[in-house]
Amino acid sequence: MAMDNYEDFEDRARTLHGLGDVKELLHWDQQVMMPEKGIKARSMQNSKIAKIYHQKITSDVLSNLFQELDLNEFDLDERANIREVRREHDRASKVPEELQEKLSKKQSTAVNRWEEAREQDDFSLVEDELKEIVELKRRYAKSIDSDKEPYRVLFEDYEPYISYERMEKILDRLKQSLTKIVDKIGDADDIDQNVFEGEFPEEKQMSISREIVGQMGYDWSRGRLDVSEHPFTLGNQFDCRITTRFDEENLAESLGATIHECGHALYELGLPQDLYGLPAGSSRDLSIHESQSRMWENHVFKSKSFLKYLLPELRDTFTDQFEGVNVEDAYRSLNRVDSDNLIRINADEITYHLHIVVRFELERALINGELEVGELPSAWNDKYEEYLGVRPDSDSEGVLQDIHWYQGSIGYFPTYSLGSVLSAQFYSKADEEIDNLEEKIASGELQSLRDWLKENIHQKGCLYRTEELVENVTGEKPTADFFLDYIERKFGDLYNIES
Amino acid sequence: MAMDNYEDFEDRARTLHGLGDVKELLHWDQQVMMPEKGIKARSMQNSKIAKIYHQKITSDVLSNLFQELDLNEFDLDERANIREVRREHDRASKVPEELQEKLSKKQSTAVNRWEEAREQDDFSLVEDELKEIVELKRRYAKSIDSDKEPYRVLFEDYEPYISYERMEKILDRLKQSLTKIVDKIGDADDIDQNVFEGEFPEEKQMSISREIVGQMGYDWSRGRLDVSEHPFTLGNQFDCRITTRFDEENLAESLGATIHECGHALYELGLPQDLYGLPAGSSRDLSIHESQSRMWENHVFKSKSFLKYLLPELRDTFTDQFEGVNVEDAYRSLNRVDSDNLIRINADEITYHLHIVVRFELERALINGELEVGELPSAWNDKYEEYLGVRPDSDSEGVLQDIHWYQGSIGYFPTYSLGSVLSAQFYSKADEEIDNLEEKIASGELQSLRDWLKENIHQKGCLYRTEELVENVTGEKPTADFFLDYIERKFGDLYNIES
Repeated sequence: MAMDNYEDFEDRARTLHGLGDVKELLHWDQQVMMPEKGIKARSMQNSKIAKIYHQKITSDVLSNLFQELDLNEFDLDERANIREVRREHDRASKVPEELQEKLSKKQSTAVNRWEEAREQDDFSLVEDELKEIVELKRRYAKSIDSDKEPYRVLFEDYEPYISYERMEKILDRLKQSLTKIVDKIGDADDIDQNVFEGEFPEEKQMSISREIVGQMGYDWSRGRLDVSEHPFTLGNQFDCRITTRFDEENLAESLGATIHECGHALYELGLPQDLYGLPAGSSRDLSIHESQSRMWENHVFKSKSFLKYLLPELRDTFTDQFEGVNVEDAYRSLNRVDSDNLIRINADEITYHLHIVVRFELERALINGELEVGELPSAWNDKYEEYLGVRPDSDSEGVLQDIHWYQGSIGYFPTYSLGSVLSAQFYSKADEEIDNLEEKIASGELQSLRDWLKENIHQKGCLYRTEELVENVTGEKPTADFFLDYIERKFGDLYNIES
Repeated sequence: MAMDNYEDFEDRARTLHGLGDVKELLHWDQQVMMPEKGIKARSMQNSKIAKIYHQKITSDVLSNLFQELDLNEFDLDERANIREVRREHDRASKVPEELQEKLSKKQSTAVNRWEEAREQDDFSLVEDELKEIVELKRRYAKSIDSDKEPYRVLFEDYEPYISYERMEKILDRLKQSLTKIVDKIGDADDIDQNVFEGEFPEEKQMSISREIVGQMGYDWSRGRLDVSEHPFTLGNQFDCRITTRFDEENLAESLGATIHECGHALYELGLPQDLYGLPAGSSRDLSIHESQSRMWENHVFKSKSFLKYLLPELRDTFTDQFEGVNVEDAYRSLNRVDSDNLIRINADEITYHLHIVVRFELERALINGELEVGELPSAWNDKYEEYLGVRPDSDSEGVLQDIHWYQGSIGYFPTYSLGSVLSAQFYSKADEEIDNLEEKIASGELQSLRDWLKENIHQKGCLYRTEELVENVTGEKPTADFFLDYIERKFGDLYNIES
């Protein structure tokens, strides 16, 4: 009886997963392949699939099954499957359908409004929409748990298994430490040279991008690389696709983006194949995912070791540009800190987290009712001045630069910083366990690192809660120690400063 | 009350349509974009979407709605919406779920077996699978209507609104008339020259293909052209995509395929946009669809008029090949009758229908219990000898050449011939109603024909039953008269024979 119920549950879990995959494919197609006017039909298809998903995840049959299933009777992976789907079911069932529909509609009109506002550099055009989104999101948080701090509820949508207090502590530590480092770098000599600026034709960038992800072990029989406006990764262990974009005057951007996305893809492609369609065979949440992409982007790509391997390849493809350039030049170019930069996605490894802290503090205050949407632009600018020492002149370079809030993604930003923190924590462990990791990377041998990640992280799917996973792998709960050590070492050396 | 019910019904109809579109996109992606090993995840996604579709089309809520809805209260388009969905609901509800699942499974294993059998040129490898398919299809037909001839039930799956007797009569007339013409052509002088054979690099074929479909009025903001193993078209009025394939030694193949598929696409793209998602805004069945593709492929592309426009374009792209070639040469090359050909998809406009008649007679006999699967290869070869005067040496050039039966598509073949018959019937009317149609085509002005098709056929969606639609447009029920007239004129002239 228990097994019949469990089989029924698994079938339903696979249906949900299949629908999720389909949603993703519709999105990939829309960004990469769909003809321009297809959007009208696609919107209808998206909303029908979303509605079916919602009906299935909130179904009474599922509620009844969960009451019947006794966790003690099951294995680790079965328990994980039940835990993950049950959590989603419980939360989704608490949100009134009317509220869910309002949110979906408002999010899509707000995104259109935001595009217009950003183009016209005028926050007031989207202010009312954002007010409504904040209001709806507060109601949403309340419907899930009216006793909890609303922002915490939203954060737990994205990170169910990282403690909220721990996240707050980590972000606060990043703020304290990194503002000091930024100050010191401000007093140090600038790095002026950038060997990654020049002329880089798209085809050549595509060809070297393909070569690098091949070297990283990206499996072309289970993936593809295309171009889209914003780079992204979607898929599963049998079909995980990445996109990138090219700036013909800046090579580092496309290489960084491609390697970042490939890091995400290696995670999906490293999941256990026999558990496809179930949580035990699915990737853990955003922070862990981001830890994989950032490990390859920051700890590998932006390292001296990797540049020893990469530079000869770059010289083969872009001979004039890289003739006479040495590893030190390339390393310094890739790791310049630009304190005047106002845009999150262009930020270096240090200031990036101050961009995040600004957003985290503001969104928390908004949702918890401590800040009005109308006050947002000036609050934003004040914080930039305080933490980064720069003040935006315009809304489009300020509060309008990211899509997240306007599409209802509030509580999401902290996961970016957690991703960096975890990537340093994991990398430190990998470095301990893999013999001569740096030398391997310098010779282009990336398989050892990939295999280590696959064995320790990818193959675990959602077997463990996030903090358990981190502790199993590194022996510690998530902590900013490793990241701050890494930053102090790397940038202390680059800028000749002491911590 | 009636209106509330109707709105509920429309919402459900749109959900079904959205799911249908999603199924199509999954298929397009699989054929055109999906990495090779993605199939494992895709199969799961396909089967989950198919199952959801089945649950929704057979739902009791729908049954109840149909009982409530009084057709007299509704407009023409609303009545059409109800009629079409109701018909599908009634049929799907009669098929036991267990049978439907067996069929789906068997079809996919049989297709794999068929590929193997065709490769090894050995029908016996797939014989048992085909036996089971025939058996399941008989049960399927019986579950829908146990009083009807089983083959008729299957035909009505594909062509609900063309009378079965009329189809049988049309195919019989084609057999009688075309075998005679083939005989006469056998006695006439062969056409040896083929100016479409030579060397045609893929990129150049792609570029001229794009030019031609552009000239046909294919809207690139609502479509795209890609390459796949078998050319096909999928989509709706906002996003309809075509594929083609290239043989670098034969230009006529890719041009014919591209133009054929574009004819299908123009139909979808010509449907009323405000009725997207409902039967009144959807294309009619297979024969009407095929009439559109064949009109462009046969009546336009393979005509002298079109070649007057096309030849200078071909000369621009493939100068050496078409230097000194005149319209008559090109026309004769495109319309050669090759009576030795054993393969349906390579056939000319005449023998094509004898290939169809063979399949029609055999599948009808199989399903109606008058022929054993074991006797199929020899029965196939006998009929080829009798109707076409050639006998296949091998199963792969005989009974194994088409995928249809092995994937359970039995009753489908007649729609191909009906498509040709209807294309001639429509074209004759268009020629009557459009001033100087041939001259327009000769100057590359294809808009008049496209607009005529859009106004008279595409914009009608499923407002009318198929025979009503044909009668509304042409004043007559479907008839082979126009097609046979056209063939006798065209080939009488080409081969200098009298009818």
